[in-house]
Amino acid sequence: MTMFRSVADFEAALGDLSASDEAARNAARERQGQLTKPPGSLGRLEEIAIFLAGWQGTMRPAIERGRAIVFAGNHGVVARGVSAFPAAVTAQMVANFSAGGAAINALAGAAGLSLAVVPLELDRPTADFTLRPAMDEGECLAALNAGAAAIGDADLLVLGEMGIGNSTAAAALAAASFGGEAVDWVGPGTGVDPAGIARKVATVEAGLATHAGALTSPFEILRRLGGREIVAIAGAVLAARHARVPIVLDGFICTSAVAPLAAFYPTIVDHLIAGHCSVEPGHRRLLDKLGLEPLLSLGMRLGEGSGAAVAVGVIRAALAAHDGMATFAEAGVSAG
Amino acid sequence: MTMFRSVADFEAALGDLSASDEAARNAARERQGQLTKPPGSLGRLEEIAIFLAGWQGTMRPAIERGRAIVFAGNHGVVARGVSAFPAAVTAQMVANFSAGGAAINALAGAAGLSLAVVPLELDRPTADFTLRPAMDEGECLAALNAGAAAIGDADLLVLGEMGIGNSTAAAALAAASFGGEAVDWVGPGTGVDPAGIARKVATVEAGLATHAGALTSPFEILRRLGGREIVAIAGAVLAARHARVPIVLDGFICTSAVAPLAAFYPTIVDHLIAGHCSVEPGHRRLLDKLGLEPLLSLGMRLGEGSGAAVAVGVIRAALAAHDGMATFAEAGVSAG
Repeated sequence: MTMFRSVADFEAALGDLSASDEAARNAARERQGQLTKPPGSLGRLEEIAIFLAGWQGTMRPAIERGRAIVFAGNHGVVARGVSAFPAAVTAQMVANFSAGGAAINALAGAAGLSLAVVPLELDRPTADFTLRPAMDEGECLAALNAGAAAIGDADLLVLGEMGIGNSTAAAALAAASFGGEAVDWVGPGTGVDPAGIARKVATVEAGLATHAGALTSPFEILRRLGGREIVAIAGAVLAARHARVPIVLDGFICTSAVAPLAAFYPTIVDHLIAGHCSVEPGHRRLLDKLGLEPLLSLGMRLGEGSGAAVAVGVIRAALAAHDGMATFAEAGVSAG
Repeated sequence: MTMFRSVADFEAALGDLSASDEAARNAARERQGQLTKPPGSLGRLEEIAIFLAGWQGTMRPAIERGRAIVFAGNHGVVARGVSAFPAAVTAQMVANFSAGGAAINALAGAAGLSLAVVPLELDRPTADFTLRPAMDEGECLAALNAGAAAIGDADLLVLGEMGIGNSTAAAALAAASFGGEAVDWVGPGTGVDPAGIARKVATVEAGLATHAGALTSPFEILRRLGGREIVAIAGAVLAARHARVPIVLDGFICTSAVAPLAAFYPTIVDHLIAGHCSVEPGHRRLLDKLGLEPLLSLGMRLGEGSGAAVAVGVIRAALAAHDGMATFAEAGVSAG
């Protein structure tokens, strides 16, 4: 099944975003007020339970088919010296995901998530966006559809990425979506030195200049500056929204996939949880633009969905308390 | 087995604190550098794995017998109107723990921890510390020993508490240990109003005045201003240190048990992880005094070990990555 047959399909889906179930949210909130604890004392655990109740449409939500998906792609801008690692590492890491040896394998396992790995034409990098659009229309639609198809029947999604050079694309997407200078959005990524950061800034500036005047829609921003794995995340986010499946975002690159959507359709963030705040400096800034408060801040900066997978442990704890606790009446405890 | 037969035993144990295994820490750090990720990119997950390696004395630590212990006690200062809940709630909540209906039951279960509940003479509250010492020497030793005995053969401990009125005792302990005014350490606890906060401040001030000049050792601070459940936590912390078992601290009250020890023996914190930062305002201040950076900050303020139990999910994720990931050599990935 192809979700987006045309750019018009994609735009139509963005213009028709569902809302969460208010009655289920209210029922969950009322339940939280009856559980044996001072009101509000579980903090964000209470908010998470109510959030999931709204999207699952039930007072007592559960995660039964949690899934992590890692999308991988290669980037033409790697030729500009924007990464500390060679482009070949993308495919090497995909092999590592398949063999079970990467961080996301261990962390998805610890969080009780299945893991899907979706490499996207690794031998055909996107074009260098300083010279021309990273993708043509068909390539961008194909990546969106790959993302939409990957969500399967999951009831909670962690979206991750792997792509040498993709923190440069992420910075360009953030700048195109929310403004600011290239230097505001560029950071060390996997660990480039100051000269590498300067090359990244110059690359983002050149990309913004090349496409000035053409960055007029979510699709055009994604197509001109994104990468296949990032566009796939955007497709997965939109497909999940139509399926009412909440998503746990990972770091800067994952979050940058949402930026072009949110710049035009701000309510896209309503089914999203920011799993963590990366140390990549653009991430905090981007989360602020999206109005998302991260669950965790653990100094992580790996990608792959790793921070989001750790956050799923907190989400599971929230649901365990919401579902498993007794009410004051059930327990015979004075409510104060 | 009684760990502390006398005050001298307790002081001797504090004066003989073990250090973690440096060789194991170094081996774990070296392993982290070989795993398939940019160095340092797992942030605090890497630090946690290295920390546990040091205390378990092995490059690849594991949690096999994680345990949460909730100590409960009642407080004479409740008569001063310092809590939003009646003292009877302490015993009601102990019954709720035993029946499985409290937050800590659900959260310990989600974290794979066994749960022990240790009520400490609930029908014999401590004395009102504004008038006299909360406990006599024998009572304080008994509470220390109850804490030490409860750690059993656990390899990771979450320490929690339940005791109506105990955030007032905690504020007094923090002030006696680290100075500052009563108002710096008092907060709303389970939810008292501004008049209740004023009563708490007055109670702490009165306690500090009554015992001025006598708060000259960890034991005297605990005995004069603590409560049985708080003293038991101090005993468990010290016994765990001698057994080389790491501890995950919970909120303000749990952490206040460590304050008198740390004020005289600062290295007591070396086997402690601050599981979370409570919204009780004294907690952040106290963690700063102890030099501990909390893993989580989720707006929680429940006690019972609830925040620490959620943090165990992060610790398990850290160990899963440390143990389960492939090295660059194993995976055939270019190390950059």
